[in-house]
Amino acid sequence: MSLLELITSRRSIRSFSSKLVDNEDLLRILNAARLAPSGGNRQKWKFICVTDPKTLRMVKNSSPGFYGDAPAAIVIGLEEDDSSDKTISLLDIGFTAENILLAAHSLGLGGCAIASFITQSIKRVVNSPDNFEPILIISIGYPSKVPKTPKKKTLFEIVYLNEYGKNWKIAEEFT
Amino acid sequence: MSLLELITSRRSIRSFSSKLVDNEDLLRILNAARLAPSGGNRQKWKFICVTDPKTLRMVKNSSPGFYGDAPAAIVIGLEEDDSSDKTISLLDIGFTAENILLAAHSLGLGGCAIASFITQSIKRVVNSPDNFEPILIISIGYPSKVPKTPKKKTLFEIVYLNEYGKNWKIAEEFT
Repeated sequence: MSLLELITSRRSIRSFSSKLVDNEDLLRILNAARLAPSGGNRQKWKFICVTDPKTLRMVKNSSPGFYGDAPAAIVIGLEEDDSSDKTISLLDIGFTAENILLAAHSLGLGGCAIASFITQSIKRVVNSPDNFEPILIISIGYPSKVPKTPKKKTLFEIVYLNEYGKNWKIAEEFT
Repeated sequence: MSLLELITSRRSIRSFSSKLVDNEDLLRILNAARLAPSGGNRQKWKFICVTDPKTLRMVKNSSPGFYGDAPAAIVIGLEEDDSSDKTISLLDIGFTAENILLAAHSLGLGGCAIASFITQSIKRVVNSPDNFEPILIISIGYPSKVPKTPKKKTLFEIVYLNEYGKNWKIAEEFT
């Protein structure tokens, strides 16, 4: 599939089959995460790949936004120091998380980015030190149900040309 | 190119040829941005595509982090209300920006994510209302110089299995 086909057909997956995910595929996904850009190439991220069923259940139980029995999850967190710019760090997590979602989809897997979890709980579950802050959890597994495309705004609604509010005529025809 | 090849070969581009970017390609890139996931599918983003040379020069002059004479730039901003969760919004901008960077690369173009700019200046340049907050600027153009891969941490350094600090043996062999 081309990149655009991948991007177009990717859905947030919240129902998974019981089939386990190969370690090799998890490492391919994590490698895609590793190669994402980061502000000043700082790479302040750590990825905790959770496949142990007991740990996974505790991650789920700490995450109201975690739907479906995914056989794996990746907890992405930041290890920052006082000099870190939080805005840039969050953008970095977004870059790397999108690589994870696209890489999973390219391997026939699926997942969902989950921001709704109890931070202190997750920290306890993965036994992390104080300076590690979990930011996003990505569920990973084989989709058992692929939802329809959610309603997306059109290009014409979200794109302006050169100036705020100035519509780009050809954007209307594009979609 | 496969997704992994795209992710692996993408570089942050800071030197551009003078060749202009087709509108069609800009719209393809913006369409990839449009299809990124967002928390609760909120899509609180707007994309101002800047190709007018005068506006572009003003964007550059307001952005210490903008390197190279890119013939186009995309100013990504948020339109939030009081109920918005800023962390989630910033993650959303990261998702969509990574789609932009990958889509540009897949079309033979390149760019760089720029977070270092003077917010008030950019708002004036693109004539935006108060509730629009520019978050990230992406330069877009044909690369005239592709830098070497910056030093990236290994998988073994950034990935743990099930628990913080617990190395995953096979991650060492993977890289």
